[in-house]
Amino acid sequence: MKTIGILGGGQLARMLAQAGQSMGLEFIFLDPAADACAAELGEHICADWDDSTALHELGHRSDVVTFDFENVPEASASLIASLCPVYPPPQALFVSQDRLREKSLMQELGIPVAAFYPVSTRPDLLAAIEQLELPSVLKTRRFGYDGKGQAVLRLQEDLERSWQQLGDQQLICERFVSFDVECSIIAARGRDGRSVFWPLTRNLHREGVLAISKAPSFDQQMQSRAEALIQRLMDHFDYTGVMALELFLKDGQLLANEFAPRVHNSGHWTIDGARTSQFENHLRAICGLPLGSTESASKALMFNLLGHMPGTATESVTMAEHWQQVHWHDYHKTARDGRKIGHVTVTGESESGLLARAALLAGELGVAAEINLESLAGGLDSVDK
Amino acid sequence: MKTIGILGGGQLARMLAQAGQSMGLEFIFLDPAADACAAELGEHICADWDDSTALHELGHRSDVVTFDFENVPEASASLIASLCPVYPPPQALFVSQDRLREKSLMQELGIPVAAFYPVSTRPDLLAAIEQLELPSVLKTRRFGYDGKGQAVLRLQEDLERSWQQLGDQQLICERFVSFDVECSIIAARGRDGRSVFWPLTRNLHREGVLAISKAPSFDQQMQSRAEALIQRLMDHFDYTGVMALELFLKDGQLLANEFAPRVHNSGHWTIDGARTSQFENHLRAICGLPLGSTESASKALMFNLLGHMPGTATESVTMAEHWQQVHWHDYHKTARDGRKIGHVTVTGESESGLLARAALLAGELGVAAEINLESLAGGLDSVDK
Repeated sequence: MKTIGILGGGQLARMLAQAGQSMGLEFIFLDPAADACAAELGEHICADWDDSTALHELGHRSDVVTFDFENVPEASASLIASLCPVYPPPQALFVSQDRLREKSLMQELGIPVAAFYPVSTRPDLLAAIEQLELPSVLKTRRFGYDGKGQAVLRLQEDLERSWQQLGDQQLICERFVSFDVECSIIAARGRDGRSVFWPLTRNLHREGVLAISKAPSFDQQMQSRAEALIQRLMDHFDYTGVMALELFLKDGQLLANEFAPRVHNSGHWTIDGARTSQFENHLRAICGLPLGSTESASKALMFNLLGHMPGTATESVTMAEHWQQVHWHDYHKTARDGRKIGHVTVTGESESGLLARAALLAGELGVAAEINLESLAGGLDSVDK
Repeated sequence: MKTIGILGGGQLARMLAQAGQSMGLEFIFLDPAADACAAELGEHICADWDDSTALHELGHRSDVVTFDFENVPEASASLIASLCPVYPPPQALFVSQDRLREKSLMQELGIPVAAFYPVSTRPDLLAAIEQLELPSVLKTRRFGYDGKGQAVLRLQEDLERSWQQLGDQQLICERFVSFDVECSIIAARGRDGRSVFWPLTRNLHREGVLAISKAPSFDQQMQSRAEALIQRLMDHFDYTGVMALELFLKDGQLLANEFAPRVHNSGHWTIDGARTSQFENHLRAICGLPLGSTESASKALMFNLLGHMPGTATESVTMAEHWQQVHWHDYHKTARDGRKIGHVTVTGESESGLLARAALLAGELGVAAEINLESLAGGLDSVDK
């Protein structure tokens, strides 16, 4: 296996290619963006997602094709799959593209989810709220990400406002979960069906966008419960590759929110904090090779960097002593408000060392006031009733 | 300290920039080659070494300037040094550019070197050979690298042939050293004068070009002797940055061959095999920051990749189990016969595991027959009389 085709050329594709360089793999990216940030690590076919000539070229020239973007059109993925192996299985992609199909499947598989109703009309919305009560969340079934295409319904008057905003699309209404903790479990499954799991990761979002991930953060019992949930999804699809499942922890119960059939932002810490990164194991899986160890190499905490790469933090002599435990990742993307343009992971042998270093870095990044790092301290045994 | 200027944009500049990314530094490269391989990691000023506008731009925009190439013209380095700090000190650069100045300085500092004579005329050459006897080596004083600009004189008739070949330049004639082992010591010295040393590295050359480096390979006594030699050079220059000193081991004695006032090919293993790489410590040093640990993180053996990146080796399922201990580095250079286009480092906890993995890889790379890996096994205590 030598040439990996990737539908999408964003930072996930970029980090896959970075992992693949040490494995001697080559990459071709199909992405309509002329400035796709993965392009400098391989060949870039700059074309629309449904450009059949480009899809044929990618399929013919790749030994295996994967994706870094889950809104690849179904027809495009199917066309490629007729030319060469595509992993993860396109079926997982299609289900994940639609929140209704996704939640329905999880329900069928016995994976706990918040109650939900499909909403196509105003009367559907009223009927849903009658069942779910307020607060609830109205979401588009497709193309939502990072909190976009969602509205929280807290008051009766929110219904009409959100309907005006979202009502021209197929929707799903879900019971609002006032969770205690957000987390995600990331797993890789090989072609032989063998699965490996990284430590359950604790996440903090700000305005719908992941701000911080920390791992390990949970005890073995919670880890096993999360593993069992994602295992059901992966086995259902006879999955190959990395999958992420976002979870809420509420009163000691895990509730599934959504899954991503790809490497995931909350797994970026694995580059610096785990024996094998999610990117390397995704490549190992889709190439039919043995999976690497997902053990923690050290405790890790990742900050997403949005908008522009910070200047002051990286100049800081205060941080210099910590450099071997502070890992900057610059995606080489043009700065733009709110855009994910990089991340930084701090590592440490001890929980207290890690949090002290993270606090120092948060200060330098100017996010110390907005993020309560102390809430991330310690295990969560007390929550796990 | 934020923007690092580098005179030169080859693979050494590229690996400096890769190390600097994790430290949040930015890079500007001045290099006349349009396809300088470091360019994708920063900004590239494409101009001749003596282009005064370009040198002014680099000097004005950089917080500190360094080089990845020792044949930067003296006038260019001096011009830059008038605009911003340049490390290592240009004086070390000038001495290293001329084998006669270099050997004379080492002799003055009490660093053992093979006997040598300057040669400008035919009678000089005859007089030198009378003193040194055959075999000897005739070398150009300037612009020699990777075995170029040298001729071994074994027979009387070699004198005339080599004079025809090299006699139009300033030369040096050195006693030929039929060494037992080649090695190199790499050190970093901070602005505060504190020095750190990586483990003495054993090297194998083929046709004048480094083929393999392995570390650690020597006992503490030999390590200390090598450290003492490079320390004299660094202290003499009040040096800041990474320096490499190539040594021959002959009958238990260390003889210095040449020093490089920069990161060095025989230190590439430090990326994957040491707590801090030569590239990170060079940046730490020139930025006036504390140096990182030079301890071995694991045993390491590096193969240079010449000409083109190997295809078959990287496809091998045989190697897949070893991937976490096989680290490919592709400089993104155009393939060309004999060109250094990448390297691959194998790591291992045990000497035997390392050598077994290296043998497997050498087989896949097609160099197993040409390289005697077994000669690299074990320590060299027996040689250290």
